[in-house]
Amino acid sequence: MKIITINREFGSGGREVGKRLADALGFAYFDTEIVEAIAERSKVDAEYVHNVLERGVFNEISLTFAHSFAYSPQYHKSFSIMEHQNEIVKELAAQGDCVIVGKNADTILKNENPLKLFVHADMEYKIKRCMERAEEGENLTERQMKRKIKKIERARASDHSYYSEIRWGDKRGYDLCLNTTGLEIKSVIPALAEFAKAWFQEEKDGE
Amino acid sequence: MKIITINREFGSGGREVGKRLADALGFAYFDTEIVEAIAERSKVDAEYVHNVLERGVFNEISLTFAHSFAYSPQYHKSFSIMEHQNEIVKELAAQGDCVIVGKNADTILKNENPLKLFVHADMEYKIKRCMERAEEGENLTERQMKRKIKKIERARASDHSYYSEIRWGDKRGYDLCLNTTGLEIKSVIPALAEFAKAWFQEEKDGE
Repeated sequence: MKIITINREFGSGGREVGKRLADALGFAYFDTEIVEAIAERSKVDAEYVHNVLERGVFNEISLTFAHSFAYSPQYHKSFSIMEHQNEIVKELAAQGDCVIVGKNADTILKNENPLKLFVHADMEYKIKRCMERAEEGENLTERQMKRKIKKIERARASDHSYYSEIRWGDKRGYDLCLNTTGLEIKSVIPALAEFAKAWFQEEKDGE
Repeated sequence: MKIITINREFGSGGREVGKRLADALGFAYFDTEIVEAIAERSKVDAEYVHNVLERGVFNEISLTFAHSFAYSPQYHKSFSIMEHQNEIVKELAAQGDCVIVGKNADTILKNENPLKLFVHADMEYKIKRCMERAEEGENLTERQMKRKIKKIERARASDHSYYSEIRWGDKRGYDLCLNTTGLEIKSVIPALAEFAKAWFQEEKDGE
């Protein structure tokens, strides 16, 4: 099974890299599907799961525990989301070659030896990209957008720290780190697809 | 002019990446040529220049200054090496498309907007690679080799800090960071060459 996991800074275009790379390689692409599957099994709505994952599921578990000093229903919900995330990521990866963006897939699937990518960009570039792509009704100033980006990245980093000793975004935890600052992502996809093919071939030869 | 600069951890195979990438792209490759040219202009021998660069030319300047509390001949020699390094790196880069490994070329040439690569690997892998490739007569134990690697990397990091605000090896300072742990370098060269081509095309289109 060939699995590519993508971790990314918010606004760096990591999701675009994932989608396009999956297309180029003919791999399945999983992102919101995971959120929906978690929602179904945890019997909550997808929006709720999305928010918990965005805040970091482990953060949420510790927070809900700390607030209630007990195993509250809130705590159980967060815990169930975490368990189902692990379960679903493993199930999807077992189905066939795929690209998974976020969802702590790099660490959940570490025994499957995925190709691990990290996508990042300068803050200024991320703000610009986010402003251009903001959903209707989201009228954040640049300053507010910067705060949002930092908040989400802090949550990703913190969540990652529960799973792994290597810091989120530390290059040692990834096979390739791509800086998308000023880059038209689609132009480098054929090269990344070729890199992935060579990398998986290598893995196979090395077995 | 298309310039690729490669910074690398000691023993990660960064030089092999550089050589092979230059071959694949038909670019000139500069490494020991720079040392020899510096030696000639500074009127010292190449071995001496190599040692100063390995210890970090800025470190050497501060050290020789601190030791003598004055502009000693030693200080002048180190200073001359630094000046000639800057000069020669710029001259070579002006000659045509090239790959330059180390020599602070990423920061010396920052106005030329080079494609900046960083090559790294796990310590265990670097030790193994260094032991396998050790020169005859160099009989270091693994422990000694580890110490050597760390010492050289500290010098590179410290030297880099005189040139740039971004830490040596910090992914934000590079376009691509490649982890060579367990990787047969030559297998990913065609993909890296394709990446470089797409990246330079992008740069041109974006002008």
